[in-house]
Amino acid sequence: MAGRVTSNFAVTKVRLNEDRTEVIQVDTRADSVAGEEPLEIRVDGQTLTTTMRTPGHDIELAHGFLHSEGHIQAARDIESAKYCEGATHDGVNTYNLLDVEMRDDNVISLKDLRLTLTNSSCGVCGTSSIEELAKKTRYPIPHIPVDPLVVAQLPDKLREGQKQFRKTGGIHAAGAFTLDGKRVVIREDVGRHNAADKVIGHLLMEGRLPADDLILVMSSRASFELVQKAAMAGFGMLVAVSAASSLAVETARETGMALVGFARGDRFNLYSGELKK
Amino acid sequence: MAGRVTSNFAVTKVRLNEDRTEVIQVDTRADSVAGEEPLEIRVDGQTLTTTMRTPGHDIELAHGFLHSEGHIQAARDIESAKYCEGATHDGVNTYNLLDVEMRDDNVISLKDLRLTLTNSSCGVCGTSSIEELAKKTRYPIPHIPVDPLVVAQLPDKLREGQKQFRKTGGIHAAGAFTLDGKRVVIREDVGRHNAADKVIGHLLMEGRLPADDLILVMSSRASFELVQKAAMAGFGMLVAVSAASSLAVETARETGMALVGFARGDRFNLYSGELKK
Repeated sequence: MAGRVTSNFAVTKVRLNEDRTEVIQVDTRADSVAGEEPLEIRVDGQTLTTTMRTPGHDIELAHGFLHSEGHIQAARDIESAKYCEGATHDGVNTYNLLDVEMRDDNVISLKDLRLTLTNSSCGVCGTSSIEELAKKTRYPIPHIPVDPLVVAQLPDKLREGQKQFRKTGGIHAAGAFTLDGKRVVIREDVGRHNAADKVIGHLLMEGRLPADDLILVMSSRASFELVQKAAMAGFGMLVAVSAASSLAVETARETGMALVGFARGDRFNLYSGELKK
Repeated sequence: MAGRVTSNFAVTKVRLNEDRTEVIQVDTRADSVAGEEPLEIRVDGQTLTTTMRTPGHDIELAHGFLHSEGHIQAARDIESAKYCEGATHDGVNTYNLLDVEMRDDNVISLKDLRLTLTNSSCGVCGTSSIEELAKKTRYPIPHIPVDPLVVAQLPDKLREGQKQFRKTGGIHAAGAFTLDGKRVVIREDVGRHNAADKVIGHLLMEGRLPADDLILVMSSRASFELVQKAAMAGFGMLVAVSAASSLAVETARETGMALVGFARGDRFNLYSGELKK
């Protein structure tokens, strides 16, 4: 279990000179990435929620979630909370399915539940999520070599377009850029997934999907959900200013999408895809 | 509408000396905060999702969301998308309820829908969310004066407890601390709401709720959802390393919770509550 809190991947670390006109270092080595896997919480046999979480302290997570949602008041309201064995075809415990049994006099009606993200494309383990996504995706993902000189410009270009960030210092942005770094559209939102959906919705309404000739740039981390949204819109490259999660990396590699994280202008990490020669 | 992309609040900006032993500046003035309001998206009359978003480009958001979820392929699959008038008792348009009509031959079955966050505590406008939260909260929120010398220590103390952040640079943390700044528990997760739920679940299992003698510290921004979770657990103070959203500020003020944002060691913003004399 402990090993899944972080995962190791071969990551290509790219550095540019101060003027960002030249690559001065390319170094591929193992690097730790934060674990992200779906946890399905079942209450008395029914799925309550599936949340994308970092494995570990899942029993606490289930207790806290049920308390935050108003379903339990004390730990004793839960009779038992344990991982469901045999969640996969071969009966192996994935530790991604948690069975909660309520105490008899504390039966909660699932109708009354506030349902959070029950994500039909999330199976009980990462692999099935990726497989389901691959089935669902309607556009082929183009293989786009990553041009370091373009990637180096994108964080600044995104920030330049963030009107509200300048005022508040606290809002995410998503942007679509051409492969040579020209801005197409930038949208802001307190939720990074909303910012991405606004960009994708704009492209859709403009008749510009599939986005196979565009790069999706995010001011945030790259999660599974963002890779998924990008894949559904046909983007071949996702560039995130902050970290990528394990499931984001796996999904990008599986779909063939180029994934860049920690894009900081003079440096970035390439998690999936190839550098342009 | 444009005014709701950001909101202005009277914010108290506090600065400490380099040693963080003394407050050297306290300045209360209007400051911009990123707008956060619930958007309910209805498809053919049925609620599909309620998402906490920054108002603006909502039609694009709805298009992008439906595309990302696999329900539409082109803009023409949507017959119309417009704000629902009369969403409040007095018939005023809140611009927080969007009615989407699908083209006749593109009826999607709500059963097939991937349901995202349909949050029963989120009404169609911020006010009703806050009112519903107030009704639901089981513990009185204690009024805790904010001690600047304690708040100044919290970001470093949270970071010290973040084992996985040091490895990956990309994982959130939540921590519970005593009012004089002693660490009780720290939990990490790719999702900030999960990190908070893990901390709250831990306290619950240890019989330490209500958390009226504790401070909840987040490595992330402070959203409505985090203030809500903190309120449900009875915390009197929430300290966030990054920005606070408009609905987070309003909710903290309404419940009487002290809310600190941009806690950066030698400075912080007080959005709700009072400084300790």
